[in-house]
Amino acid sequence: MFTITPTARHRRSPYYEATVAAGVTGFSTYNKMLLPSGYGDPEGEYWRLIKGVQQWDVAAQRQVQLTGPDAARLAQILAPRDLSKCVEGRGKYVALCDHNGTLLNDPVLLKLADDRFWFSIADSDMLYWARAIAAERGLSVTVDEPDVSPLAVQGPLAEDVIASIFGDWIRDLKLFWFRETEIGGIPVILARSGWSKQGGFELYLMDGSKGMALWNIVREAGRSWDIGPGSPNHIERIESGLLSWGGDTDDRTNPFEVRMERYVDLDLPDSVIGAKALRQISASGPARWQLGVILEGEKPYETNGVWAEISANGVFVGHMTNLTWSRRMGHNIGFALISRQCASGDVLEIALPSGLVSGTLTELPFL
Amino acid sequence: MFTITPTARHRRSPYYEATVAAGVTGFSTYNKMLLPSGYGDPEGEYWRLIKGVQQWDVAAQRQVQLTGPDAARLAQILAPRDLSKCVEGRGKYVALCDHNGTLLNDPVLLKLADDRFWFSIADSDMLYWARAIAAERGLSVTVDEPDVSPLAVQGPLAEDVIASIFGDWIRDLKLFWFRETEIGGIPVILARSGWSKQGGFELYLMDGSKGMALWNIVREAGRSWDIGPGSPNHIERIESGLLSWGGDTDDRTNPFEVRMERYVDLDLPDSVIGAKALRQISASGPARWQLGVILEGEKPYETNGVWAEISANGVFVGHMTNLTWSRRMGHNIGFALISRQCASGDVLEIALPSGLVSGTLTELPFL
Repeated sequence: MFTITPTARHRRSPYYEATVAAGVTGFSTYNKMLLPSGYGDPEGEYWRLIKGVQQWDVAAQRQVQLTGPDAARLAQILAPRDLSKCVEGRGKYVALCDHNGTLLNDPVLLKLADDRFWFSIADSDMLYWARAIAAERGLSVTVDEPDVSPLAVQGPLAEDVIASIFGDWIRDLKLFWFRETEIGGIPVILARSGWSKQGGFELYLMDGSKGMALWNIVREAGRSWDIGPGSPNHIERIESGLLSWGGDTDDRTNPFEVRMERYVDLDLPDSVIGAKALRQISASGPARWQLGVILEGEKPYETNGVWAEISANGVFVGHMTNLTWSRRMGHNIGFALISRQCASGDVLEIALPSGLVSGTLTELPFL
Repeated sequence: MFTITPTARHRRSPYYEATVAAGVTGFSTYNKMLLPSGYGDPEGEYWRLIKGVQQWDVAAQRQVQLTGPDAARLAQILAPRDLSKCVEGRGKYVALCDHNGTLLNDPVLLKLADDRFWFSIADSDMLYWARAIAAERGLSVTVDEPDVSPLAVQGPLAEDVIASIFGDWIRDLKLFWFRETEIGGIPVILARSGWSKQGGFELYLMDGSKGMALWNIVREAGRSWDIGPGSPNHIERIESGLLSWGGDTDDRTNPFEVRMERYVDLDLPDSVIGAKALRQISASGPARWQLGVILEGEKPYETNGVWAEISANGVFVGHMTNLTWSRRMGHNIGFALISRQCASGDVLEIALPSGLVSGTLTELPFL
């Protein structure tokens, strides 16, 4: 148990004071911001996400905004997914890759207008990446970070809470659809999205001075459903097979290795970054893939946030990139980033800090 | 006091186990790695750096390596400082900027060979930035991260410790000069450098499996000089006027605003990123500059790692970007990033969490 040292290098969220008032006990950092990681009751927080509703400070999902005549063009250059039919008010999960097809980030792209897009990014400096490409290609586009801070409301009761605030129209929003609205004079974009599979919404607050106010509106509205504070949940996201870029990927991971093939279009022009390389990788076959692994043992193993080596008959075949005790499955589970020689059903050895443990490969998600 | 949550998104240093054994109590994150921030005795750690010698795990200063026929060309494209006379075995402090002249990073550039360079980077994803530029310009260069992990030995007695390990030749190394060598079969690059003004060296370990071994060699050699563990020291670096990129800069800071003008050459060709913009900024005059501020009051103020607003007669003029109690000066001090309308000697008001405090601008460094 180590403390985190405050520094001006790590920006605080507009919800920071609200999370402290709510009893936050730990932080991670994400996109050079403080990201709340727990409120002192891991078991209660897990079950509230599975059965009830939580509010999460996820302002660290920073936005990279493209504005101007070439905004759509730049979005398509950056994302190897066909965006030609992308319409206003819809988001798309995309794989930002470098010229070699290596995955640099897995944001949700929001189309706000024909000349305005946001990438809601994972934990890497895509603002600079997008600026480099825009400038080198001489595009007429501004790349900057708007004053936007997502607040997630997640869990099976999230829809009732959000409907009580904004009205029943929100029930018709499909996954990744969004609409610009306001509550009590606070401007937000309301999207059906969030980094869990328990259902929910994200409120993209568009005025950083209103963090506490928006947090409190959600908390008060949620009282009837026993809402509580939470954070991106390590256990649930592993059970649900959600990717953590930078956690489950390394510096040579391509989208095909981490189940993102359905978000990659192979017939895009070569001007799209990575398009050519991704066609080659797809043709020759990626080296690894991502599967689940269910470990033997009836009690939680100690985890330390470090990848564990996996071997088959003593030969290295890949890594287990995360590990958790699934409360619903009653098993230790994790993701394997592993040779395509291995397949679901294989029994392998995982080198945990406590020693070698046997595990069985399975398809993702677990639940 | 909050805890930091372990995650595979934050890589551990090869010295991690050694720092735990040495009693590390807190971490920050830097370049998506864990960076030790203290060993439980802030006062003792400060004085050991000022009067003795410390060893610091600074593996989070990750290296961006350029290799190949166009390595030198790419280095010059990225750094708006004349590198034509840069020779092998010398490092140079450079300002990596975007096309608008905004400061993206302030690394030390090490020239290992005509076709091999390292940027020893501050806290932003310059690997991706360099890759974007290399690919977009079609350069023949590989941009990757080598297996390199700096260990800093800092303090006035550092030279004696390092000489006892490597020999007296190290006494002739000038600032930022380096040499490839080894100790006990462990390959290192030894440089006279480090993020303090107390003198010292950095050992760029070139075999990540040897972190504990190298740490222990330095610790054992340092016993005669009472070496102890330490980390980049917030108090000393402010006293010494050392810049923290991302801490003392924002998303519109240019090199002229943070005392980096002597590391920028204005007569470079337009192919150098930012060259044109920097000439314009230099000609029209930057809006802000960086000065010291000495606050009234005889006791340490509480700091929270957030910029404080500075005003002159009630009008906003800039920010105080850091704050510490200088043990040697007996004053609260910090850096001001402030309008050029303000100058050394001005008395201004700083909005601390505890209320308005008066402070006097001064030149940097303080000591």
